[in-house]
Amino acid sequence: MKLIYVIVRNVDSSRVMEGLNKQGFYVTKLASTGGFLREGNTTLMIGTEEEKVEEVISVVKKECGPRQQIISNPVGPAEYTSMQVLVNVGGATIFVMDVDRFEKI
Amino acid sequence: MKLIYVIVRNVDSSRVMEGLNKQGFYVTKLASTGGFLREGNTTLMIGTEEEKVEEVISVVKKECGPRQQIISNPVGPAEYTSMQVLVNVGGATIFVMDVDRFEKI
Amino acid sequence: MKLIYVIVRNVDSSRVMEGLNKQGFYVTKLASTGGFLREGNTTLMIGTEEEKVEEVISVVKKECGPRQQIISNPVGPAEYTSMQVLVNVGGATIFVMDVDRFEKI
Ligand code: NI
Ligand code: NI
Ligand code: NI
Repeated sequence: MKLIYVIVRNVDSSRVMEGLNKQGFYVTKLASTGGFLREGNTTLMIGTEEEKVEEVISVVKKECGPRQQIISNPVGPAEYTSMQVLVNVGGATIFVMDVDRFEKI
Repeated sequence: MKLIYVIVRNVDSSRVMEGLNKQGFYVTKLASTGGFLREGNTTLMIGTEEEKVEEVISVVKKECGPRQQIISNPVGPAEYTSMQVLVNVGGATIFVMDVDRFEKI
Repeated sequence: MKLIYVIVRNVDSSRVMEGLNKQGFYVTKLASTGGFLREGNTTLMIGTEEEKVEEVISVVKKECGPRQQIISNPVGPAEYTSMQVLVNVGGATIFVMDVDRFEKI
């Protein structure tokens, strides 16, 4: 058994949780601030068998892999004046920990 | 030294915390949502010596083992109209993790 | 790779976080209550290489080692009536956990 911590940006957390739930993983979301990523982030905790660790990591990569997004920022008082900027989104920090003993009561 | 995570339903968390405190265990309660159990849940973190892990687990079993409860649900506008329903309560998920190094400063 | 949990009093948490950030450590702060220390506390989570665990622990010791502080408590209705009391501040509980696998995506 393994316990996996996934730290993602707040904006990515529901996508990642839904993606993991769809594959049958239970996810506990810990309230957290600061951290491994610069912006607001969320810590997710997933307990799973060794042989499914790879699957958890690939769901996280699929749902919140780092990518660039074009965002239109209004720059003037009129709505039709805007500037397109490239921002980095996504990214995650993952820690896989060994579980000595697991009990479901 | 071991670090134990106990995930319980919100309604069971104070019982479990009190039970553990009475036996001399310090419990840190992490704010959490979603998770291993279907309803709202709480994650408790307990640090303890190897030889007391069994005691922690038996307190948790005693305080929130799964059981069925008869609940009277009012079903009509009048208070004396109610329906008795059997609901599942209790249950917990426990992860025992090995601690490499422990410091109290 | 190691994952370190540091549980400190709420009043000490920003000092410890700033001290760790200054040394280049990322710190995730988990919302927590109750616990290893008697008063309100905060759980910090730090991921780091084995060889830097010592540095994390010494920053924590420096920033929130246990010490006594003289506090002036107003004891009467007039502001100039106060009593000096010695209180214990600082202190921390540290758990160092081994990380099986670490991914930054
Ligand atoms: Ni295992
Ligand atoms: Ni030990
Ligand atoms: Ni390592």
